[in-house]
Amino acid sequence: MEYEKGFYQIRSNEEILKKIKLERESIGYYELPFADTTHIKEFAQDIKQKYIIVIGIGGSSLGAKAVYDFLKYKKNFSKKLIFLDTTDPIDIKDKLESIDINNTLFITISKSGSTVETIAILKYLSTIIELNRDNHTIITEVGTSLFKYAESLNLKIFDIPKNVGGRFSLFSSVGLVPLACAGVDIDNMLNGAKKIYRSFFEQESSYNILMEKARFIVENKQRFNINVIFSYSSALEGFNRWYVQLWAESLGKLNINGTRQALTPVGLIGPIDQHSFLQLIMEGKRDKTVTFIKVADFEEQILIPENTPISELNYLEGVSFSKLIDMQADATIKAVKDEQDIPYDVITIDKIDEYNIAELIFKYELLVSVIGSFLQIDTYNQPGVESGKIILKDRLKGLK
Amino acid sequence: MEYEKGFYQIRSNEEILKKIKLERESIGYYELPFADTTHIKEFAQDIKQKYIIVIGIGGSSLGAKAVYDFLKYKKNFSKKLIFLDTTDPIDIKDKLESIDINNTLFITISKSGSTVETIAILKYLSTIIELNRDNHTIITEVGTSLFKYAESLNLKIFDIPKNVGGRFSLFSSVGLVPLACAGVDIDNMLNGAKKIYRSFFEQESSYNILMEKARFIVENKQRFNINVIFSYSSALEGFNRWYVQLWAESLGKLNINGTRQALTPVGLIGPIDQHSFLQLIMEGKRDKTVTFIKVADFEEQILIPENTPISELNYLEGVSFSKLIDMQADATIKAVKDEQDIPYDVITIDKIDEYNIAELIFKYELLVSVIGSFLQIDTYNQPGVESGKIILKDRLKGLK
Repeated sequence: MEYEKGFYQIRSNEEILKKIKLERESIGYYELPFADTTHIKEFAQDIKQKYIIVIGIGGSSLGAKAVYDFLKYKKNFSKKLIFLDTTDPIDIKDKLESIDINNTLFITISKSGSTVETIAILKYLSTIIELNRDNHTIITEVGTSLFKYAESLNLKIFDIPKNVGGRFSLFSSVGLVPLACAGVDIDNMLNGAKKIYRSFFEQESSYNILMEKARFIVENKQRFNINVIFSYSSALEGFNRWYVQLWAESLGKLNINGTRQALTPVGLIGPIDQHSFLQLIMEGKRDKTVTFIKVADFEEQILIPENTPISELNYLEGVSFSKLIDMQADATIKAVKDEQDIPYDVITIDKIDEYNIAELIFKYELLVSVIGSFLQIDTYNQPGVESGKIILKDRLKGLK
Repeated sequence: MEYEKGFYQIRSNEEILKKIKLERESIGYYELPFADTTHIKEFAQDIKQKYIIVIGIGGSSLGAKAVYDFLKYKKNFSKKLIFLDTTDPIDIKDKLESIDINNTLFITISKSGSTVETIAILKYLSTIIELNRDNHTIITEVGTSLFKYAESLNLKIFDIPKNVGGRFSLFSSVGLVPLACAGVDIDNMLNGAKKIYRSFFEQESSYNILMEKARFIVENKQRFNINVIFSYSSALEGFNRWYVQLWAESLGKLNINGTRQALTPVGLIGPIDQHSFLQLIMEGKRDKTVTFIKVADFEEQILIPENTPISELNYLEGVSFSKLIDMQADATIKAVKDEQDIPYDVITIDKIDEYNIAELIFKYELLVSVIGSFLQIDTYNQPGVESGKIILKDRLKGLK
């Protein structure tokens, strides 16, 4: 008797962990938190410029932007980090007008070294300012066109490991160099990531949480095909965007059966969107899981004072905005919970610092790896974004 | 013989138009573009302050923010418009530190006059600056707590008509007053909206486009339950957010059969997200419609110059960024089109001005009304956001 099959079962947690451990040997992002950062910190220490401009699209900028946006209002960095991350002419013009170009360090980031948008901006910049070793640094793979350009001008080059993809590159030079230059404590970041790494691979709390969450999402992917994040802080806006690209680009794939996977990310800001999108969650079709992200301590005491106008709402008096936003989150969570058939979870960040945002980001990177492993897809490639790029390059060449 | 039924068919375009025309008599937003704006312009003319701060959440701020964000990089307004639109203490602190509070006009907007977040911010502000007729203006419904407060201090009050909901209120005082104060040409806005209004109700091009689009979305709502917008300009970021709230809050409803509706909005920025989310569209499950929004003329010539570094990409030289972003959009559209089973459409805005953004926004308001009418839902209420608000108010009262 023979037997053949063309279907598969969702694997056990043990099999997934084994697969992830194997993957760790070829996919570079897992071990990034353990790299030595001495050379990056030394480089950053010597930066004299007030403005740091990152020229980089997608994975080359979204990670650092998520961390910088999270910290910038809290930390009064003496340097300003700005991202040229789009080809919109008005956006480029506005950002360049907001800085002193002669007091700026430019960091050009492109893994392939030939990203159309990045090189277009670099070409433009090269005629409005002389780019040299003093004001221009390159982050790319060894041997690319951009690498050769940097070598020819003796620019400082930071390497991107071949086996680290853009959307998983925050803890490589791609994220650490610009952040260190801006004044971010990158070692504290790496400590946060290491904590999650250990907790996962030593099968402690992160392992249990991520396995259970990933398994739920995969087992219920037909019913709950949309994964909403409600972030209760404006500081998480950059994280939301980073999450949307990580999730969409990693999990939007054909699986080994050739079946199109469906998980779709949505990133929202709680105190604003609970006035609108919440309606869709509460009364719309039950096709969404909801993750609430709260900040336990904003370390910012703004009190709503006593004896102020609109006596109808006097119960607000004596309450701080930190307390209010926390209560808004809890009230929304309670409303969602009361529906009973909306899957939700709540992540509470201790406070707004490097350690905590790194924990959150590394946790999501691992979560995506685990979900991808359950789904039996290639989490790390992105064939679906290539066809548009090829059409663009062909058409651009056709202009000549 | 008797007959009873508990199902319904999707109505004809003629029936929908008839229903919309009837609705126009009770739902206030349709006729807003035809209102007289003299008193708003007169008020705005006299504003001496450099900063205009809007205190308003959700529908009270997202519309004006969409228009202002669209125009601000292009128009060098002499006044700066800032939105206190969340309870995040760091966000509030940062925004207040970015202005000169003694050179600021505050505009408090709340339809109910008792929005917790809005009143909380107002209470806080009232102790850090004396709010009076010279620096504080109120937009609310007649008779609310906020209205009475304004009367007691003899503040200037602008009325919000009872039958205009927050998310449809851009063309009322809610949007027009702050925008006029910031220097936006509100009559040109209204002209754009009027153009769409006429084209729709006179059954010209807007009618045909909106009816066909709405019908497609409704007839295929089970299969394509996610509606993605890819905006090819950073200036449309505010529009994206406005769209997400309008769509989610209006269309996330139970229909007359008690069936949960499922349409979910996603707003993306093309040149950035085509590097990530596009993967999900191309290889993920076919559950999305995609609308591309392009700007025909950025009126901004930034050329990529000749003889610049990275010779591999020399085909970029001589191309402008306006051309490049346009070609990026077209290449992505071609890639999506080539898949053949992804429903898409392309809206091209002529240029970045008041007229064009108003056209776009009014078109989306009408589209949502038409879809809601096809779906047989109440497009204009939002019972699903109320339960969280009640829990919050009860808990706040419990603190005392």
